Amino acid sequence: MINVAILGFGTVGSGVAEVIRKNSAHIDEKVSNQIRLKYILDVRDIPDSPFHDLIIHDFAVIENDPEVDVVVETIGGAKVALDFTRRALKAGKSVVTSNKELVAAHGYELLQLAREADVSYLFEASVGGGIPIIRPISQCLAANELTGITGILNGTTNYILTRMIRAGLSFEDALKEAQEKGYAERDPSADIEGWDACRKICILSSLAFGRHIYPGQVPTEGITGITLADVAYADSLQKKIKLLGRAVRRADGKVCAYVAPHLVSEESPLANVEDVFNAISVQGDAIGDVMFYGRGAGKLPTASAVVADVMDAARHIKTKKYISWAEGGPDAVFSADTVASRWYVRLEQGSGALDRFPGAETARRDGAPEGETAFVTADAYTRPALEEKLMGLKPQLIRVLD
Amino acid sequence: MINVAILGFGTVGSGVAEVIRKNSAHIDEKVSNQIRLKYILDVRDIPDSPFHDLIIHDFAVIENDPEVDVVVETIGGAKVALDFTRRALKAGKSVVTSNKELVAAHGYELLQLAREADVSYLFEASVGGGIPIIRPISQCLAANELTGITGILNGTTNYILTRMIRAGLSFEDALKEAQEKGYAERDPSADIEGWDACRKICILSSLAFGRHIYPGQVPTEGITGITLADVAYADSLQKKIKLLGRAVRRADGKVCAYVAPHLVSEESPLANVEDVFNAISVQGDAIGDVMFYGRGAGKLPTASAVVADVMDAARHIKTKKYISWAEGGPDAVFSADTVASRWYVRLEQGSGALDRFPGAETARRDGAPEGETAFVTADAYTRPALEEKLMGLKPQLIRVLD
Repeated sequence: MINVAILGFGTVGSGVAEVIRKNSAHIDEKVSNQIRLKYILDVRDIPDSPFHDLIIHDFAVIENDPEVDVVVETIGGAKVALDFTRRALKAGKSVVTSNKELVAAHGYELLQLAREADVSYLFEASVGGGIPIIRPISQCLAANELTGITGILNGTTNYILTRMIRAGLSFEDALKEAQEKGYAERDPSADIEGWDACRKICILSSLAFGRHIYPGQVPTEGITGITLADVAYADSLQKKIKLLGRAVRRADGKVCAYVAPHLVSEESPLANVEDVFNAISVQGDAIGDVMFYGRGAGKLPTASAVVADVMDAARHIKTKKYISWAEGGPDAVFSADTVASRWYVRLEQGSGALDRFPGAETARRDGAPEGETAFVTADAYTRPALEEKLMGLKPQLIRVLD
Repeated sequence: MINVAILGFGTVGSGVAEVIRKNSAHIDEKVSNQIRLKYILDVRDIPDSPFHDLIIHDFAVIENDPEVDVVVETIGGAKVALDFTRRALKAGKSVVTSNKELVAAHGYELLQLAREADVSYLFEASVGGGIPIIRPISQCLAANELTGITGILNGTTNYILTRMIRAGLSFEDALKEAQEKGYAERDPSADIEGWDACRKICILSSLAFGRHIYPGQVPTEGITGITLADVAYADSLQKKIKLLGRAVRRADGKVCAYVAPHLVSEESPLANVEDVFNAISVQGDAIGDVMFYGRGAGKLPTASAVVADVMDAARHIKTKKYISWAEGGPDAVFSADTVASRWYVRLEQGSGALDRFPGAETARRDGAPEGETAFVTADAYTRPALEEKLMGLKPQLIRVLD
């Protein structure tokens, strides 16, 4: 018998309870053991829930109950969740989470705590919702030296961009629609400013490259500056605008991670990832490119990833799981300002600037105001080099994914 | 120290040796142990290989050496490979393979042998080359009741179809080009007749649904009957022709697996899987659709999947790995003749037939001979029901993926 306690009965937490109850026969058979939900910690009583008899309000009950083997943390944030996760690990309980903010900010420390207590700290659900990505990177691609990760990591912004591209909605209208459909929160900042994608690329690059990359080390740009003019110009070049989280590993082992909109060729598999779907492409020396695709959020997909981790923790209750990475630091990273790429440039009055970029590919759109110029450079530039070349001008600049 | 023996120094076997040697520091660190290549079994001496000093010719040396922990079987086929795999497992050695033919035909038996000997039998590389798919299905999606699998499982046929669609090559010319590029073998039957895809869908459905599905239970149709006329008609409907391996699970637990060309909407992520790439889409009750994409073959991608399994076997040298399924049998499957779908129908003289399909969507192509008719039915039919409706006619029939 494996006893499970869920911390936080919100969307994901209640989804976890549902999946465990609904698929219990199947789950128990797969782990050759019985998984029992023993407690649900929440500040509310939730009398209408079928799980109301499991609700408790004091974390110490879970912490001090030697029967509890696995704690599912779906509280979110990095305050209470951090405290409870530390205490659960120290009490010898494996912890499973979907909390990307916590893993991105404190993953190294918590993995160390887990190792010391000889338990598991698992977070498959923290990136890509139900898409398997943490375990494939840590296990299936383990024979590779991984060199890069490129992902559409946030479903909300991908939905907004898809609606701008397909339906011609403005950013504001597309955001409003996403909110009406429940894809965006009332305060959408974490999504549209790129913070959510930032946390996810932190987790992926820490795992893939072996040292903790912290959110503060990841330059992050959202999609609030993307206009319908940019969408139209990109379309004339057979490209789509996508918000990407990227991480590249240099030969010296240092890593550069950043989040920014990119122009992506329609031929790229990433360009066809639409609506709220996510996709993560991983590059390795032996494997080439591998891509993982699916719903990046949602109650049941995310819950199913949490439950898969619970099952894994249950199977390994007496042996540790091998997720780990080393501490980060300023010497773990190099600056995105040294990463060259081709660029999309849009200027309100810029026909002269075009001459400075021989071979540039000019973009077109209907109804462009006189003098407006947009193009993609033929050569790759770092951002500082490009800005120097555009001295005095204040263009829209978007990287091109090649 | 984990000692490894490779059986068969062909493309994949030599790739495994290369990956182990090239990435050994990285690999040893990841498994917290030293992985050493001890023997390579081959009929040849291979004096020019950097691994020639490891070559032996007698399997009994490996079988009887208690130091050998993991045997990598990259011989292929189901004769010698079967004998050696049985003997290695019985001798208490974990076995890792890329041999889809063997797993599809004897997976149940070999997994049982592994369980009895308390060792691992792992075959991540048998499906999708380097794409992680076996472990994600068996572990990451474990909390789901899986309901279906749809995959582009064979890179050779996908390359041929891509060249027919993009370059307008005939099937014969595209095949010839694939052979020149090394994507197709001199005897291409296993690919173009769909047998390779058949073996892979057997492995995937056995794993996903829990009972062994044997190749003889999987109706298999290749791409030799696909013409440029079909490609053009599909294009007029914004669809592409793809060879798919499919498996669906009914509520009673029975499974239907089959391999056949399908018309796939250009909006489907599968339609954009081009050239030698593979993609596997898995449907589960909680997760929805998840897709895995990458190079489905090739020396290094496949070798890296084998080495990841070797690493996994090395980590679990004292605990078993939890891949298993139950024996199959006639009661494990239901007939593809009961699976309804929309159909693409092409008739040399068929304008009359169109009237029998109200609402059908008519396809067009330039230069069609007079009387030729092609359409997609509006309703779903089983194959027998469709053939009855087309009584007396001998049309081209291709399923539509909806």
